[in-house]
Amino acid sequence: METDVTTELYPRERVGLVREATGKAGLGAVLLTPGPDLRYVTGYDAKQLERLTCLVVPAGGEPFLVVPRLELPAAQESPAGSLGVELVPWDETDDPYALVARRLPRDVGSVGVADRMWAVMALRFRGAMPGAEQVAAGGVLRELRMRKSAAEVAALRAAGEAIDRVHRRVPELLKAGRTEREVGRDIADAIIAEGHEQVDFVIVGSGPNGANPHAELSDRVIRPGEPVVVDIGGTMPSGYCSDSTRNYCVGEPPADYRAYFAVLEEAQRASCEAVRPGATPEEVDAAGRDIIAAAGHGEHFFHRTGHGIGLESHEDPYIVAGNREPLEPGMAFSIEPGIYPGPHGARIEDIVVCTEDGYTPMNVTERGLVIVD
Amino acid sequence: METDVTTELYPRERVGLVREATGKAGLGAVLLTPGPDLRYVTGYDAKQLERLTCLVVPAGGEPFLVVPRLELPAAQESPAGSLGVELVPWDETDDPYALVARRLPRDVGSVGVADRMWAVMALRFRGAMPGAEQVAAGGVLRELRMRKSAAEVAALRAAGEAIDRVHRRVPELLKAGRTEREVGRDIADAIIAEGHEQVDFVIVGSGPNGANPHAELSDRVIRPGEPVVVDIGGTMPSGYCSDSTRNYCVGEPPADYRAYFAVLEEAQRASCEAVRPGATPEEVDAAGRDIIAAAGHGEHFFHRTGHGIGLESHEDPYIVAGNREPLEPGMAFSIEPGIYPGPHGARIEDIVVCTEDGYTPMNVTERGLVIVD
Repeated sequence: METDVTTELYPRERVGLVREATGKAGLGAVLLTPGPDLRYVTGYDAKQLERLTCLVVPAGGEPFLVVPRLELPAAQESPAGSLGVELVPWDETDDPYALVARRLPRDVGSVGVADRMWAVMALRFRGAMPGAEQVAAGGVLRELRMRKSAAEVAALRAAGEAIDRVHRRVPELLKAGRTEREVGRDIADAIIAEGHEQVDFVIVGSGPNGANPHAELSDRVIRPGEPVVVDIGGTMPSGYCSDSTRNYCVGEPPADYRAYFAVLEEAQRASCEAVRPGATPEEVDAAGRDIIAAAGHGEHFFHRTGHGIGLESHEDPYIVAGNREPLEPGMAFSIEPGIYPGPHGARIEDIVVCTEDGYTPMNVTERGLVIVD
Repeated sequence: METDVTTELYPRERVGLVREATGKAGLGAVLLTPGPDLRYVTGYDAKQLERLTCLVVPAGGEPFLVVPRLELPAAQESPAGSLGVELVPWDETDDPYALVARRLPRDVGSVGVADRMWAVMALRFRGAMPGAEQVAAGGVLRELRMRKSAAEVAALRAAGEAIDRVHRRVPELLKAGRTEREVGRDIADAIIAEGHEQVDFVIVGSGPNGANPHAELSDRVIRPGEPVVVDIGGTMPSGYCSDSTRNYCVGEPPADYRAYFAVLEEAQRASCEAVRPGATPEEVDAAGRDIIAAAGHGEHFFHRTGHGIGLESHEDPYIVAGNREPLEPGMAFSIEPGIYPGPHGARIEDIVVCTEDGYTPMNVTERGLVIVD
């Protein structure tokens, strides 16, 4: 069984830490429905269903997990079943929202609802607890989730190694005459074959589509001399995500591409090297952006530099102008500047983790342009 | 291109119908983030991201679609791009919640938020529009979504035919000596091969696991003489879902199984035959449940009879005691009673659509026990 790994990655003390943080934040309780917050706290990868599953962590009482009776066996078998948290099953004609309200103090005050809770569920909780002011539980959870433990960094590294293996296979898959969709399907298969449980996204942006950072896979045929942006990621069985972008070209790219790609390489390295405890995300963003702007491509880099990553592909901290919350060791995020002048574009992306004295990358494949036959 | 199919399945007039229903419900606007409601109204299968995408339908003004600038090309290419709805892009350092608030009247009153909107987004809208009372937009949308059009019924029929083809392949895949997980993986591949875009769930409940309606795939080896519950479904490229349960056995099942399976067949048929305009979900539930209870298995059928289906696997109407909202032509839902006495169990599930004078099934494979070699 995966018990040992699970205990290390999802340690039992997290429920207690959340309870403590809930009290410190002045909340009466947090309500965590299936999603990354619930998994982070309990290890339980519960399905999001219309029937309510919810971990209730009162600041001043014992936590309990409300589950539909149909899901009780799954909850018992999950890591949540061995946390010593009471499981409270409800039947098809029960009202689980009222059940939660009855078990909380009448004067519970503010309650935190999981950021990804369905609004309809939050509204039902509001109906059952009209006196309780709702706030986003993310304010409590982010403080814990943003600082990755050694086991979490190891899980991110394993995810990075898996997506790096996929990038190493791209030259076999990317051929002139194939469509983006054909290449993308093979990459998706490779993402699973290399150890991910789920494909999160596959971008194969060839030629002009490379100038659209969020291009969808299309039936466009890839031609010689066209740069191709390949941005791929998935979720590992651990729950942790990968995300890396590299650039390929069948044969020699246009001369102007070579010129701005060199600027991009320098900018991406500069943003990585700006990462250290105490630096702000805004500074990390500016380090690369200034280089791109100085080369005359400021308007061709129109997205933020990066996003945090962990149990979600995109989570705190965001590496964006305006974010002045200092980085700390254990924070994990992408560094992915791009230059999109058209009729092609490029982006280089690594996941990095802030360390005591700088950063360590989770992706280590060649960052330069990869020429394929 | 798929334009014709899209127009029929996602007709342009829906935005107008939603606007009208919003006014009738006394709401000032509805706010639809990516998910089944947005897709139903616009045909746009947008990704749920931390960056806000939101269709705003004011009761007394023109609808508009707020999109992150990075998603603008995808939105323009989507069916939403040709609806005549204004696309309003926002940049990385803009506040899109404030942007929506500025474009709505100050005295907008109540606003409906998509049922599946992330709570953190609903809370940000609350911050940007503190005077607006939030309610679930599902109350407006369900009235439209519950009554399927002819094109939607055709899409559900195509989904039903696809999952029926998978069930016809199960006898080749289910062999004594294989594990549930091995069989489940092959079934998942078949779900895609037979035309689905996504696997939603695969239950292969062998022996005692068949007595757990929501069993997870396990490494349990399937043995001769053990009944196996196979409950599978996926989402088609149209957006519409399939869901069907059949029962298999490698060789001859136990005698007591034969006895209660006959009761289950009768009960499932009785619930199907109770479907007609004006009947209530509660009556449809009772029609089968009474037969199961009369045979002494009342306590072994501990879940509702069914759930609506369409762009979601589970949606309104729910076929459950207490639901007295009369059925109408076009409503689509599962009829899936089960009997779980242990050490095995059985469930038979069809998707049916209520017609002018009864029902029509979307699944037509043999409902009886299928004996495999």
